[in-house]
Amino acid sequence: MHRERFYTLSASCRDRVGLVTRVSGLIAEHNGWILETSLHAEPPAEGEGAGRYFMRIEIRADSIPMLLSEFRERFRPLAEELDMEWKITDSAVRKRVVILVSQQGHCLYDLLARWQSKELDIEIPCVISNHDTFRGFVEWHGIPFHHVPVRPDNKAAAFAEVQRLFEEVRGDTMVLARYMQILSPELCAAYPGRILNIHHSFLPSFVGGRPYHQAWERGVKLIGATCHYVTAELDQGPIIEQDVIRIDHSDEVEDMVRYGKDVEKTVLARGLRYHLEDRVLVHRNKTIVFR
Amino acid sequence: MHRERFYTLSASCRDRVGLVTRVSGLIAEHNGWILETSLHAEPPAEGEGAGRYFMRIEIRADSIPMLLSEFRERFRPLAEELDMEWKITDSAVRKRVVILVSQQGHCLYDLLARWQSKELDIEIPCVISNHDTFRGFVEWHGIPFHHVPVRPDNKAAAFAEVQRLFEEVRGDTMVLARYMQILSPELCAAYPGRILNIHHSFLPSFVGGRPYHQAWERGVKLIGATCHYVTAELDQGPIIEQDVIRIDHSDEVEDMVRYGKDVEKTVLARGLRYHLEDRVLVHRNKTIVFR
Amino acid sequence: MHRERFYTLSASCRDRVGLVTRVSGLIAEHNGWILETSLHAEPPAEGEGAGRYFMRIEIRADSIPMLLSEFRERFRPLAEELDMEWKITDSAVRKRVVILVSQQGHCLYDLLARWQSKELDIEIPCVISNHDTFRGFVEWHGIPFHHVPVRPDNKAAAFAEVQRLFEEVRGDTMVLARYMQILSPELCAAYPGRILNIHHSFLPSFVGGRPYHQAWERGVKLIGATCHYVTAELDQGPIIEQDVIRIDHSDEVEDMVRYGKDVEKTVLARGLRYHLEDRVLVHRNKTIVFR
Amino acid sequence: MHRERFYTLSASCRDRVGLVTRVSGLIAEHNGWILETSLHAEPPAEGEGAGRYFMRIEIRADSIPMLLSEFRERFRPLAEELDMEWKITDSAVRKRVVILVSQQGHCLYDLLARWQSKELDIEIPCVISNHDTFRGFVEWHGIPFHHVPVRPDNKAAAFAEVQRLFEEVRGDTMVLARYMQILSPELCAAYPGRILNIHHSFLPSFVGGRPYHQAWERGVKLIGATCHYVTAELDQGPIIEQDVIRIDHSDEVEDMVRYGKDVEKTVLARGLRYHLEDRVLVHRNKTIVFR
Repeated sequence: MHRERFYTLSASCRDRVGLVTRVSGLIAEHNGWILETSLHAEPPAEGEGAGRYFMRIEIRADSIPMLLSEFRERFRPLAEELDMEWKITDSAVRKRVVILVSQQGHCLYDLLARWQSKELDIEIPCVISNHDTFRGFVEWHGIPFHHVPVRPDNKAAAFAEVQRLFEEVRGDTMVLARYMQILSPELCAAYPGRILNIHHSFLPSFVGGRPYHQAWERGVKLIGATCHYVTAELDQGPIIEQDVIRIDHSDEVEDMVRYGKDVEKTVLARGLRYHLEDRVLVHRNKTIVFR
Repeated sequence: MHRERFYTLSASCRDRVGLVTRVSGLIAEHNGWILETSLHAEPPAEGEGAGRYFMRIEIRADSIPMLLSEFRERFRPLAEELDMEWKITDSAVRKRVVILVSQQGHCLYDLLARWQSKELDIEIPCVISNHDTFRGFVEWHGIPFHHVPVRPDNKAAAFAEVQRLFEEVRGDTMVLARYMQILSPELCAAYPGRILNIHHSFLPSFVGGRPYHQAWERGVKLIGATCHYVTAELDQGPIIEQDVIRIDHSDEVEDMVRYGKDVEKTVLARGLRYHLEDRVLVHRNKTIVFR
Repeated sequence: MHRERFYTLSASCRDRVGLVTRVSGLIAEHNGWILETSLHAEPPAEGEGAGRYFMRIEIRADSIPMLLSEFRERFRPLAEELDMEWKITDSAVRKRVVILVSQQGHCLYDLLARWQSKELDIEIPCVISNHDTFRGFVEWHGIPFHHVPVRPDNKAAAFAEVQRLFEEVRGDTMVLARYMQILSPELCAAYPGRILNIHHSFLPSFVGGRPYHQAWERGVKLIGATCHYVTAELDQGPIIEQDVIRIDHSDEVEDMVRYGKDVEKTVLARGLRYHLEDRVLVHRNKTIVFR
Repeated sequence: MHRERFYTLSASCRDRVGLVTRVSGLIAEHNGWILETSLHAEPPAEGEGAGRYFMRIEIRADSIPMLLSEFRERFRPLAEELDMEWKITDSAVRKRVVILVSQQGHCLYDLLARWQSKELDIEIPCVISNHDTFRGFVEWHGIPFHHVPVRPDNKAAAFAEVQRLFEEVRGDTMVLARYMQILSPELCAAYPGRILNIHHSFLPSFVGGRPYHQAWERGVKLIGATCHYVTAELDQGPIIEQDVIRIDHSDEVEDMVRYGKDVEKTVLARGLRYHLEDRVLVHRNKTIVFR
């Protein structure tokens, strides 16, 4: 993480000779000072002619003698010629992150601590919950809190309200910080690659509810957590980050829940940071994470 | 961690034949139902005739048909015969933990989150700080906050005030949650085995100030944190818990500080839990930790 | 691990008051010097009246003034009264471990290195393989090597031969050190809790063949290995030990195979050691591992 | 690791605008197909005008329509203009690795297992030892073994003989695989960045002899190992790789030695691989490791 203001180009396109030269050449022509470059060539799958190339480049903002909007226009012709998926973001523009939470607060406390200390340099325009539990805590931080109850009979309306709130505050990213509801397919479809969830197991083990009970039943010796993008298929989205912690036979489900919380909040925070710094590029159902 | 109320006997004495039988026999005589037993025989050091034996036994409170105070009296003659260091604590009596903090809040947020969710079932009678930074946050939780500034010219008075506050609230344990002051020798001496610190390095590497700078200079590939009891000798007290996290050449000191915070708060919380559950027994300058 | 000769009692029975006293008392009566004690109370499952108690006690051999065979007889009445499953083993009697291997040698090299250095203080009466690849290497170490080819049309005969060889050398434990054949149900049934396998995934993820390909497809960020007892149901036996290692998007299946080997051999060696030191007790489909 | 033959350019020079374009442009001019690119900009130290740039680029050999020797000549003018430290190696040319060992064989077995399976695609022209312990094992693998005793009175001559043997077999890299002798300053100076050592502690903790005893004395909760380049100053060379493993109060020094061996061999193998694949670039007393 650099302290100077910088632009982040993240892009992917079909792999070919000279790609890096073309892109870095255009940056050099504009006198751009590169702070960090990450590149990855994904080999072609069987039966494909060419692989795919992924890149992430940080450029010092003050080295480019024009507005970012203009630099984007200078970059556009090359991107179109190479048939890129691309974006250039500005470290000075804080991302707007909406947090969804239920009744377990460990991830919420953790995220607000990182926000309070500016470790996470983001806006949190609001927190949404299906319970009123954390209203006081959230509002004390000066962040609006919305209680949107979810019942079997009002799911469609509830998630429509979540979406309305997210739009209203112009959210960039939605974080399910142990939000114990399954989002509607519409909501999932509306924001591909923009909703992060923390699942309390080392996926693909123990999909669905009560993963710690499943882990206890199976007698595993490590438990974990997985931060992934939400897709319509439950717990099947692209994995961003995972980690585990050791347990043993003396640990009951309650102990596993407790140990697990520490992994959950750390994995969510890491995954969210990678996402916010545009370090995560999705390829099929997998992620390239330029750490 | 058991949900029933229980008593915890923790003790050490000279090792001999029949020790476990004597102790567990006395418990059985009183019909005590043992939930958990941890035992450790420390071999004799060179030149010593006998080793030392350490034990920790959890007994279901409702299985003992008398008050704990009476049970303690029943246990005392055996303890004296065996020349034990011992105590029996009651899970229903919450420990009183005083937190000291400076201007970095990650450990404070983490501890309060665990306290709020009752994961840490403790009393926090007050938080003491040499800065006023976290007054609002602490007081919002309903916890008294004391600002005790520490300057080169008032150290003795400041630490006397810390001690007075700790005594006033009848504190059991003092936690230095990234408290950036070196306690006076008097304070250290007053509470042996009752003051926990989190040091931001994997001790014994990088003792003293700016350990992340030292780590960056040396080019280590992992950084860590250490929870230890405070003694008069800086960063030399008995180690309770440690952990590490991987870094690489691209991480600047600032990145290491950020990664390190996650290790610090987790290691402090684990060490504190072991301490509060009477799982830590000190032997010379080392700890037995019955996890 | 103690250097003195010692006996290891491992046992389980219904939990009740006074259990530890009875068992440790009998040991003390015979003047037994306890080196290490591990105890675990497994709470009753729902609908069960009582839980189950597990214990493992190391006693210095020279402190018991009789032969082990006689001490066993002294212990038997108590064990029968308490309806125990139990055994007492002697550290001076080396376990006889038969290794099965196919064409990947990393676990074989690793086990023989530990055997050569006496880190694993065992007999290896023979190595059995469905390929002739490692004959020279094994025989150079002075260990008999048996090539037992396994084809679709001779499986029953082949596994009968494996069993015959295992019986002939009076094997205690069979280790599948990346043996790429699924044992016959008869063989599995013949040696419950005595056949260890290393599976190259973090079970229960990626059961069956080609787990690294499965892991690559799913895009997980950690891969692992699992040491478990073999039962008739493939990869479903009680888990003894597991571990993981971090990978990233740049790792192809071949890289994962390579990283995985390091985890496999370490996890197998740890699991095998726990087993050989009678640290593993099976309860339903789970293990208590007294590390 | 790619299966096609490839060239690896590793280089460093003063950072400036357009560097990547110049280098990748020259590769593209020759139609070079880039398989993998790793780049790192080291910020200027205080008082320095410019930082330093490090790069490692893998190019498919068959995409360059000339011999490597010619391609090197084509690259040289640019390298000289940019005042680079650089080299281009060929994956088809196996590195020649000389192993030095004493009486502990775990790293030797581990390295030979990796060599036997071609996981390490290297030549081992000879093994040198100050003991004769592993002669049979090494020679069985078809590798020459040299016994060069080292005594207080013959050190200079002994290390001169080691150097002579290394030169005779045209060694590229010397690996101290738990070689329990301190090399002479002359030998260290002769091969900067070409001699790797595995130290059995998590440096900078526990420099020098008997690190596990030191660790036991201090009561640390994790022990580790460090792979580093050898310099004249004992255990102070640039660190390539480190890792740790958890221990507890029940572990004696002997247990720590045993656990430690697993970390040592894994860390040495990882560090050696990074080195052999030209992934390690030295900067002052630190390493850039392009994993």
